[in-house]
Amino acid sequence: MAIEFWQEEFETLGKKDLQKLQVDRLNKTIESACRSPFYGNLYSKKNIKPGAIKAISQIAELPFTTKQDLRENFPYGFLSLPKKDIIRLHSSSGTTGNPTVIFHNRHDLKSWANLMARSLFCAGIRDTDVFQNICGYGLFTGGLGFQYGIETLGALSIPAGAGNSLRQIKLMRDYGTTAAHAIPSYLGRLYEVFEAEGLDPKRDTQLKTLVIGAEPHTDAQRKRIEEMYGVRAFNSFGLSEMNGPGVAFECTHQNGLHIWEDSYVVEIIDPETLQPVPDGEYGELVMTTLDREAMPLIRYRTRDITRIIPGECECGRTHRRIDRITGRSDDMFIIKGCNVFPMQIEGVLMKIPEVGSDYMIHLETMNGADEMVVEVEVKSDWFQGDIKRLNSLSNTITRQIRDEVLAKPIVKLVEAGSIPKSEGKAIRVTDNRKNGLLN
Amino acid sequence: MAIEFWQEEFETLGKKDLQKLQVDRLNKTIESACRSPFYGNLYSKKNIKPGAIKAISQIAELPFTTKQDLRENFPYGFLSLPKKDIIRLHSSSGTTGNPTVIFHNRHDLKSWANLMARSLFCAGIRDTDVFQNICGYGLFTGGLGFQYGIETLGALSIPAGAGNSLRQIKLMRDYGTTAAHAIPSYLGRLYEVFEAEGLDPKRDTQLKTLVIGAEPHTDAQRKRIEEMYGVRAFNSFGLSEMNGPGVAFECTHQNGLHIWEDSYVVEIIDPETLQPVPDGEYGELVMTTLDREAMPLIRYRTRDITRIIPGECECGRTHRRIDRITGRSDDMFIIKGCNVFPMQIEGVLMKIPEVGSDYMIHLETMNGADEMVVEVEVKSDWFQGDIKRLNSLSNTITRQIRDEVLAKPIVKLVEAGSIPKSEGKAIRVTDNRKNGLLN
Repeated sequence: MAIEFWQEEFETLGKKDLQKLQVDRLNKTIESACRSPFYGNLYSKKNIKPGAIKAISQIAELPFTTKQDLRENFPYGFLSLPKKDIIRLHSSSGTTGNPTVIFHNRHDLKSWANLMARSLFCAGIRDTDVFQNICGYGLFTGGLGFQYGIETLGALSIPAGAGNSLRQIKLMRDYGTTAAHAIPSYLGRLYEVFEAEGLDPKRDTQLKTLVIGAEPHTDAQRKRIEEMYGVRAFNSFGLSEMNGPGVAFECTHQNGLHIWEDSYVVEIIDPETLQPVPDGEYGELVMTTLDREAMPLIRYRTRDITRIIPGECECGRTHRRIDRITGRSDDMFIIKGCNVFPMQIEGVLMKIPEVGSDYMIHLETMNGADEMVVEVEVKSDWFQGDIKRLNSLSNTITRQIRDEVLAKPIVKLVEAGSIPKSEGKAIRVTDNRKNGLLN
Repeated sequence: MAIEFWQEEFETLGKKDLQKLQVDRLNKTIESACRSPFYGNLYSKKNIKPGAIKAISQIAELPFTTKQDLRENFPYGFLSLPKKDIIRLHSSSGTTGNPTVIFHNRHDLKSWANLMARSLFCAGIRDTDVFQNICGYGLFTGGLGFQYGIETLGALSIPAGAGNSLRQIKLMRDYGTTAAHAIPSYLGRLYEVFEAEGLDPKRDTQLKTLVIGAEPHTDAQRKRIEEMYGVRAFNSFGLSEMNGPGVAFECTHQNGLHIWEDSYVVEIIDPETLQPVPDGEYGELVMTTLDREAMPLIRYRTRDITRIIPGECECGRTHRRIDRITGRSDDMFIIKGCNVFPMQIEGVLMKIPEVGSDYMIHLETMNGADEMVVEVEVKSDWFQGDIKRLNSLSNTITRQIRDEVLAKPIVKLVEAGSIPKSEGKAIRVTDNRKNGLLN
């Protein structure tokens, strides 16, 4: 297959040219940000001036922006343009407290739609595809974000919205849907409805491509979805503060998400020391908008934990790749000097066929030393009293977790169903250490 | 106030120029329609050729298109372009049977967004407004239709979606919403939530303008909404077959809905004889798209009942005005030779202060003649045994209904609450005539 790009001139820029573009755009962004009350005030206090950035590494000299800053300066403290120029807002939900709001002018929406089209193209979607957008519209950015991107790409968009599985299936079959976007957990439910109707998506639809995002998920989950639907599933990453979807996307090589560096400066920092971590190491993603006029954000701490995947991608795109999100920096704990995110542990466990559906991580102080005890359910039909197999599985899990997070765990295998289920969001970590921080 | 237009060159076209434009566009539309399987086949049978239309009145020589035709030729029988050129579809809901689907290419979406912006501008909305779109997104055309229109106009759009009244109120107050779009019945419910929260939209919001549509409603309902919210409320008309919203809209004179005749040919026909009715008389609206490339529809029978309002509008727009929709041609009945729509009767009743909330129309054969018996609840606190007042009210209602529909009714006043409530959509007419058609 010939290598194809949506915007070859941007997507394949050499490192030097990309950094030059970033420096130019960052200075422009600082200039524009200074017109907002928040940055105008902050940068004048710190004597930061547009044009001060000569090399992109100097971005580390600028202060961070946090979600708390957004909340405290609600609603217009970050606005760099007169209200009259704004044509859309997206706001977090909730009926009490200050939401997070992002404003867009015409340029911003066009730029976002273009990045979204570039993302879809990079995952192999073309103007000949029929694309069903299975997600909420309105203030949630997934709806309008994908909608404008699909239309910009020129594929046939079906603005299906969320829910109503029978109708989703009918739409897929009526119009020959070839590609769809949904959150991974919904695709599991939708498959059950296919089954209940006596249908098999592999046989009874024309689906080739699924785009999954908005929910952290493991590669094992992706593979299950690919098998259920007989498709290739691509990981989509975005957050409303950076527009929404279209920030980073997997290409057809499915080896990480290209993050669009002509539109964002990407940093990975240690959330404790706030210092940059080397490529390949996990840390908190920090992002700066480079092509947003209404509401630029500079060094925004996303709280999402990922890493830069070292090396180049075979697809020819020079924009670096981030790994799938393994959690939020708020979830991170430190054990034996290692930063650990529960999703890393889950990722290891989900790949082991003997492992059941639940696990817990207990941080304990034992004989004066802190230990990570990982309690793991085994599948109900697997263990039949063979102690040797049990020890062998335990050793495998121990070794694989240590390889992943560097800290060696104490693995305890337990019967299926013996870990209590929490209501709502699963609680995966308890901290019983003498100086534990998580309680 | 200076007269202002979104597109003066189109909105104020003289009759002759407008008709010339219509003839040109109609011939182009026929040419394009002939590339679809449905029209290609039909017009070739009837030997209708592009360029055949010399005067717009000749449109009456073309066959009608019905919803049944759309259903029978589902999904691609009306498509005039290759599927690859289509970038969006809107489809009616339902999980069984053939839905109605409309396809759009890039030109169509741009043209629709422009008509929507023109409509909002004509109701006095400007790029300085903050516009909250309170309606479902996705396949329902109200969401994306208004969204693209607001953005094209340049107002600040809040894509609020439907429901969640507390959140709607919070959005209004957080961002100083000045204009909103909602269905009329929802605005009643929303007002109750304002009240329950101890809030008054007149005092506690910056609302100036409401756009109401998608549900037939009377002028009395509009006035109630205007009083509740302290705003001006404008009637919006559209149907998905003609894109969705943005087909016809009230200007600031609020005296009927300008229907955009550069983009649609408008006819009013008698739904029984299928012949045109004179301006001012009620009949079924028949529409032809003049600026749609992917899926032109020619002489589409909308089933909506309205009339052309004779005369010119002071606003300076030359596009004729239709009256608010009084019902669907399917609801129409004929009594004493007069075409009657239940909404006409409702319109009369709602203006009379003594009338309560329910009514029924019974068509009966009495002594060999067909009669229309209108049963009307009076308000519970009004009737106190005074037979004279009762007769006087009955006479008033009789006279006003006769003035409206030409047929004289037999009015029966009944106590509040005595008309049984139907579940779901109210049943307003029973036909007990010897040769009644409605049963």
